[in-house]
Amino acid sequence: MLNPETDVAPSPRVDVEAHHRRMEEVSAFGGGPGGAMTRLTLSDEDRQARDWLADWMKRMGLRVAIDPIGNMFGVLDWAGPDAPTIMTGSHLDSQPNGGRFDGAYGVVAACTAVETIMREVAETGLQPRANFIVVNWTNEEGARFQPSLLGSGVNAGEHTLEFALARRDGDGVSVGEALETIGYAGSSPRIVPDALIEIHIEGSYLLEKAGKRFAAFDRFWGATKYRLAFIGRQAHTGPTPMAERKDALLAAAHVIAGLRTIADEGGVGLHTSVGRLEVHPNSPNIVPAEAVLFIELRSADPDILDTAEGKLKQLIVEAARRAGVEHEVRAIDRRRAGAFDAGLYALAEETAAGFGIETMRLTSIGGHDAISMSAVTPALVIGVPSVNGVIHHPDEFTTPEDRALGVEILTGMLWRFCRDGDILKT
Amino acid sequence: MLNPETDVAPSPRVDVEAHHRRMEEVSAFGGGPGGAMTRLTLSDEDRQARDWLADWMKRMGLRVAIDPIGNMFGVLDWAGPDAPTIMTGSHLDSQPNGGRFDGAYGVVAACTAVETIMREVAETGLQPRANFIVVNWTNEEGARFQPSLLGSGVNAGEHTLEFALARRDGDGVSVGEALETIGYAGSSPRIVPDALIEIHIEGSYLLEKAGKRFAAFDRFWGATKYRLAFIGRQAHTGPTPMAERKDALLAAAHVIAGLRTIADEGGVGLHTSVGRLEVHPNSPNIVPAEAVLFIELRSADPDILDTAEGKLKQLIVEAARRAGVEHEVRAIDRRRAGAFDAGLYALAEETAAGFGIETMRLTSIGGHDAISMSAVTPALVIGVPSVNGVIHHPDEFTTPEDRALGVEILTGMLWRFCRDGDILKT
Repeated sequence: MLNPETDVAPSPRVDVEAHHRRMEEVSAFGGGPGGAMTRLTLSDEDRQARDWLADWMKRMGLRVAIDPIGNMFGVLDWAGPDAPTIMTGSHLDSQPNGGRFDGAYGVVAACTAVETIMREVAETGLQPRANFIVVNWTNEEGARFQPSLLGSGVNAGEHTLEFALARRDGDGVSVGEALETIGYAGSSPRIVPDALIEIHIEGSYLLEKAGKRFAAFDRFWGATKYRLAFIGRQAHTGPTPMAERKDALLAAAHVIAGLRTIADEGGVGLHTSVGRLEVHPNSPNIVPAEAVLFIELRSADPDILDTAEGKLKQLIVEAARRAGVEHEVRAIDRRRAGAFDAGLYALAEETAAGFGIETMRLTSIGGHDAISMSAVTPALVIGVPSVNGVIHHPDEFTTPEDRALGVEILTGMLWRFCRDGDILKT
Repeated sequence: MLNPETDVAPSPRVDVEAHHRRMEEVSAFGGGPGGAMTRLTLSDEDRQARDWLADWMKRMGLRVAIDPIGNMFGVLDWAGPDAPTIMTGSHLDSQPNGGRFDGAYGVVAACTAVETIMREVAETGLQPRANFIVVNWTNEEGARFQPSLLGSGVNAGEHTLEFALARRDGDGVSVGEALETIGYAGSSPRIVPDALIEIHIEGSYLLEKAGKRFAAFDRFWGATKYRLAFIGRQAHTGPTPMAERKDALLAAAHVIAGLRTIADEGGVGLHTSVGRLEVHPNSPNIVPAEAVLFIELRSADPDILDTAEGKLKQLIVEAARRAGVEHEVRAIDRRRAGAFDAGLYALAEETAAGFGIETMRLTSIGGHDAISMSAVTPALVIGVPSVNGVIHHPDEFTTPEDRALGVEILTGMLWRFCRDGDILKT
């Protein structure tokens, strides 16, 4: 474990302006007016951003490896096989009409940090005692393909590759096909590093409200996600008697409304949502034959999650009965609640303190690739403020000052490994 | 008015096999497996069907006229300007994944009937005393563009041409642009005939249940249609506290569920539906920012319709309040309830009786182009059974025997005008 007595070394100086320029560059791929970003995973915009990242990694001197689910690794194994390997990064994919910082900031910050360390090593002649890998995970968002955290989930052994490659988007295109199309179906093996640090924008406004600039996450919420279909009977909205309608959308409405009641009963420790609803055939004059709901339940407490899921199941049956339709649960994804690595947390706190910055202790409610990876290696998410707590929206914004601070702290954390080796074990 | 004492002339013999072949031919344009038909208005499939119809009309010797909203008229003005003009036809457009008989049967039956009359006139040397027009109306269905009954609504003077051409589909393509694309933006003027008869499949199972084969509609329901948007705030479904969400889909769910309650309170004389719901950005991890509902209220009774609309307005405000979102009524279409022409009804009854067939008196709940046109000319819808009452579904089916009977009765009705001139005025 980390020795709190150890002095924190002065961090290498980060070229902040270069980092900001990189953020500008990557924002061109899928960027729209007013801060909008639509870089769906494995789209052509994603391919452009990936090509840009691979090019940067190669110019830095990293070895670029692509695995079969399209995860990109920029490998720097300069410290030899006995030294620990520290992974850092996030994801370049975005939501549709989302923002520029969710994910991309973590990848650019990671690359900047490793670049900074390489420059420092070259200038000081220090013998590096840790290897580094910059990572860009495939389909963190889960917008185009479900489940989210797909690439990190495969790398963590949570999903089989076969399962992941067979996921299909709304147009029926599989992950495997999309990877082939953009040329990112690689053959590199799974990589389990000795530690993983992901930096991300906060996605809420707790930092902002507390007047703080830096957070580390000690725990993460679990999530239970249902893809649920109601199957009714297509009919004319005019002559068909009300009593004989089998309206799939009506059942969906009962679930959406009822799910909010479940959340109200569950208190602040439970979040619920239906973010996506597919209606077929979705014509104004046709009683809907099918409605597919993408339902999420989230909580830090497994009992709350279980109770909510039990209520959801009753709600589904009741909604189907009231609308006279059938139902079919097409997929269930579960992400357990859990804790991040305490040693990495302490390192974050110490490193931030070295910059005169207090670390705010937060719980991660949204998913992060570091959560998938926490099942197989010590992992941590650290965060910088998101103005007004906005995320998944074009208005999403983190100030340049806070972005710079985040890169500096991340660099400082990685530098500790570089200088001192596997500090988590000492 | 029609004199019930008049003997019904023997109808010209219809070439039933030729009619069935024509139905097969037109079903190729947009037809899919299992009886499915997707021939959205002004699509390329619709263009193909229109070209086919225009070709048939020309070969019959009709003059083909296209008006600026794309309505197709096959004109036979052989009886001179003082003779009445009788219009007959329906629409070639379909719902997405709909059936083959809704609309197309009425157009093919109309063309077959006029072709039969022309042959009879040629063979007997009778001096025709009525002109005929076969019509194919643009966008009856309202699936791609709203409102439905668009082409007939323009011809009836209910909508301005400017309004109609500016309607846009879900992809933002306007009616005007779609007409240019398929080459069906014509310049023919509005045509108000002296009578209009539309034959259609029933769309319910009242004929079947009664063991009858033929119906005439004496009245039609009114409809009030709302295009309603709820505007919330796009946010992450994970970290965003429940209390701060502005979930547009939740408001939509309250309306969909509440609308069913309004229907239950309204009794069998009120039909309600939400057939189409657009959710933006419709990503599993994003609290929906916007939900657009296509709401219908239908009744034969204007008071019931008014009461239901009043309740709907309250429901909208309440749903918006509960979900913390804004609302915006983007369009309201109203179709008044009313009656078809009694003289045409009597003619249908008499003509059917000539075939030994009893006419069932029905009320039209769904919309028909003849309803638009009934505002400006005597109009009637006649109907043949739909097996199991199925409509707007690939299973939609009318037996060849019933289809043949319908064409025969339609032909017989038109023949009366051809032989006796304006029988509605005598």
